[in-house]
Amino acid sequence: MIKKYVDENEGRMLEELFSLIRIPSVSAQPEHKEDMVRCANRWKELLLAAGVDKAEVMPSKGNPMVYAEKMVDPKARTILVYGHYDVMPAEPLELWRTQPFEPVVKDGYIWARGADDDKGQSFIQAKAFEYLNKNGLLKHNMKFIFEGEEEIGSGSLPAFIEAHKDLLKCDVILVSDTTVIAPDTPSITTGLRGLAYWQIEVTGADHDLHSGTFGGAVANPANVLCKLIGDVTGPDGKIRFPGFYDDVEEASKEERDLVASIPFDIEKYKKSMNIDEVFGEEGYSTIERTGYRPSFDVCGIWGGYMGEGAKTVIPSKVYAKISTRLVPHQDYKKIGQLVIDYFNRVAPKTVKVDIKLLHGGYGYVCPIDFPAYMAAERAFETVFGKRPLPVRIGGSIPIISTFENLLGAKSLLMGFGLESNAIHSPNENMPIDLWKKGIETIINFHQEYDKEA
Amino acid sequence: MIKKYVDENEGRMLEELFSLIRIPSVSAQPEHKEDMVRCANRWKELLLAAGVDKAEVMPSKGNPMVYAEKMVDPKARTILVYGHYDVMPAEPLELWRTQPFEPVVKDGYIWARGADDDKGQSFIQAKAFEYLNKNGLLKHNMKFIFEGEEEIGSGSLPAFIEAHKDLLKCDVILVSDTTVIAPDTPSITTGLRGLAYWQIEVTGADHDLHSGTFGGAVANPANVLCKLIGDVTGPDGKIRFPGFYDDVEEASKEERDLVASIPFDIEKYKKSMNIDEVFGEEGYSTIERTGYRPSFDVCGIWGGYMGEGAKTVIPSKVYAKISTRLVPHQDYKKIGQLVIDYFNRVAPKTVKVDIKLLHGGYGYVCPIDFPAYMAAERAFETVFGKRPLPVRIGGSIPIISTFENLLGAKSLLMGFGLESNAIHSPNENMPIDLWKKGIETIINFHQEYDKEA
Repeated sequence: MIKKYVDENEGRMLEELFSLIRIPSVSAQPEHKEDMVRCANRWKELLLAAGVDKAEVMPSKGNPMVYAEKMVDPKARTILVYGHYDVMPAEPLELWRTQPFEPVVKDGYIWARGADDDKGQSFIQAKAFEYLNKNGLLKHNMKFIFEGEEEIGSGSLPAFIEAHKDLLKCDVILVSDTTVIAPDTPSITTGLRGLAYWQIEVTGADHDLHSGTFGGAVANPANVLCKLIGDVTGPDGKIRFPGFYDDVEEASKEERDLVASIPFDIEKYKKSMNIDEVFGEEGYSTIERTGYRPSFDVCGIWGGYMGEGAKTVIPSKVYAKISTRLVPHQDYKKIGQLVIDYFNRVAPKTVKVDIKLLHGGYGYVCPIDFPAYMAAERAFETVFGKRPLPVRIGGSIPIISTFENLLGAKSLLMGFGLESNAIHSPNENMPIDLWKKGIETIINFHQEYDKEA
Repeated sequence: MIKKYVDENEGRMLEELFSLIRIPSVSAQPEHKEDMVRCANRWKELLLAAGVDKAEVMPSKGNPMVYAEKMVDPKARTILVYGHYDVMPAEPLELWRTQPFEPVVKDGYIWARGADDDKGQSFIQAKAFEYLNKNGLLKHNMKFIFEGEEEIGSGSLPAFIEAHKDLLKCDVILVSDTTVIAPDTPSITTGLRGLAYWQIEVTGADHDLHSGTFGGAVANPANVLCKLIGDVTGPDGKIRFPGFYDDVEEASKEERDLVASIPFDIEKYKKSMNIDEVFGEEGYSTIERTGYRPSFDVCGIWGGYMGEGAKTVIPSKVYAKISTRLVPHQDYKKIGQLVIDYFNRVAPKTVKVDIKLLHGGYGYVCPIDFPAYMAAERAFETVFGKRPLPVRIGGSIPIISTFENLLGAKSLLMGFGLESNAIHSPNENMPIDLWKKGIETIINFHQEYDKEA
């Protein structure tokens, strides 16, 4: 009956989702400021249509929040659904095979920015609620909070939660913004990495210099920046900021054995991105490297002449955006300062270095023995026919640890994406079958959750 | 009388020069293809107006050549003036205080792209010729060849010279495309560095990756590129490509003593570009570092997210434009391949590296005991009141060694720029007084040259 409902309503549901996707709510780009408001308002309409008692677009110090609720019984438990309506920038546009903000259905997939992250996934929650509500099956209260700054660090959300603790009061937080291992290998995300993200600017001369007249006699800030960044990672894949690993907890033998049991095809993994060799910290498997170990990445670098042909210039300024993913117990504020201090200390006096922490967030670990987790396990088993594996993943949802701190509630991460969905990349996509299974699984979860009461 | 002529005609001469500068003949940018033709034609008009017998815009395999001549006597000697009508890109435009292609006279300077390099300087040659011709003072033949690809490596000129050896036959080549040490310290450029310029592309995964999901498990091509480039230069300023210094000739004690006698104010030098410390190869002075030693510079680097905010991405591809300045005896073709082989050898298997030599050129050394050089010395002394110093500079004019090979003639580099003229940078400029002294000096040179016959 659940499956039948989802099949019969698929066309309508997709059209509703597409109305969200068509709004280019790119939080990182100021020119999309009004699209953020349009997208929040569209969510409000869709949640009201799905059956909530009330829905509001509420101001925050940044992009507005979408709040909605359905209160079936003031004494019943409450599940708060969290999601985000902002998306990553679509650039580089030339690598898309379709228009990023004009969703296309092809070969059983939705192709669009936000098809997965997080419009497609948040929508799973809304449609599961619609089904339960329409059929009088909802035994607990439901709240929804959708923010518009997740992709830029959820800067406005903590203060909003702090100011609306009663409104957001709940027993558990439910989030669809993660992946399953494979369509036939369900999993629940039990760990997230934290994040610290900096921009570094290196200045040499106060104007671009002729590389003939000055080359060899004056420090080139691009050479220097490359050296500074190149020195961070050792040939063993270790990150060399002194003190960086101090708070990293080694996984137990039991946990490492569990990780080793997760099905993982390294050849398929390499093939999926067309690389010949993986690279990471020595002594750890690929899954451990993303789930249990921190990382250091240049996310962007630019400076000097980037056009056609050969301009012989020593740039005045070069820039990089650098980030680390952090594991639980690593404090992004401490790491943030440690990295700033490091670069200021090692930078040569021949240049000026200016480095700022742009944002950060804490990691998270979810216990696998609390009621909501066990309900989620059964829901997955019902729909996928397999018990889901608990998996720590490499990504970050910094707000999860903030929720725990401010609301005292644990988050349950029931995501339905795939690693191959290319979130944050050109040609983001979502397999429609999996998306529909997601709706079925969440419907089952709510019913299983009621049994735990 | 020479000075009076230059003073009285200053306004007209500037207007003529400005008509050249207003044509944005940027050879590195394909959108300026037609401006190259317009600029060549404008030069043809100006040379005819200055009194040549004939002037032509001649096709080459790239941008057209401007050729002109004044034959006073088939048995007399011939001086060939070489210059270039193309200019560097004006970017970054936001750092200009005036419009790059709308020349402005302010505080005794011309401000514009090409005010010095090389429109302003080539124009000195044309106006010196105008004076001599108008006053019946020309005792030798004169030819002019102005090309439109100097800033991108003079790709079409060698074949053009080869095909027009008789047309370009000459006894000496005269070039104004270099600097004097200071307005009160004249100098003649006796050495130029060679050049090799590459573009390097590093590819990781075949699409951008989420830095959370994949960070720490897959090589980031930006991290790798930084490491590859950062490793090229040692803390001692030595360039570490194996074999790179094999053909570099050490200067003699006498030559180093001469270099040490060149007035040089390191504090003023640092202040001119607002740096705290210079940087270069250990064991050499700043002048030696640019005149006698090779260099390695990143001219541009780009990849990943360069916009506002914090996009957490592992880029698929990153790029750099890298260059070396070479000293005489270093062969850019040999170095070109040596660097390509080096990067291909040291690049890790976790990424794909594609590196191409974009262009290159040989260095040049001018003897200080041939007739034209001695005529130039006396001309400078007459106008500046000081004997000019012979100086090897860091820049490259690759075509100079080609002229020698193909035409069997030495080049005399009588330039009137200043290092502070910001060629290749925003706010390029030329002091008008020095520019006028240049015209006077070249007039004197031609007359002194006749005395050497």
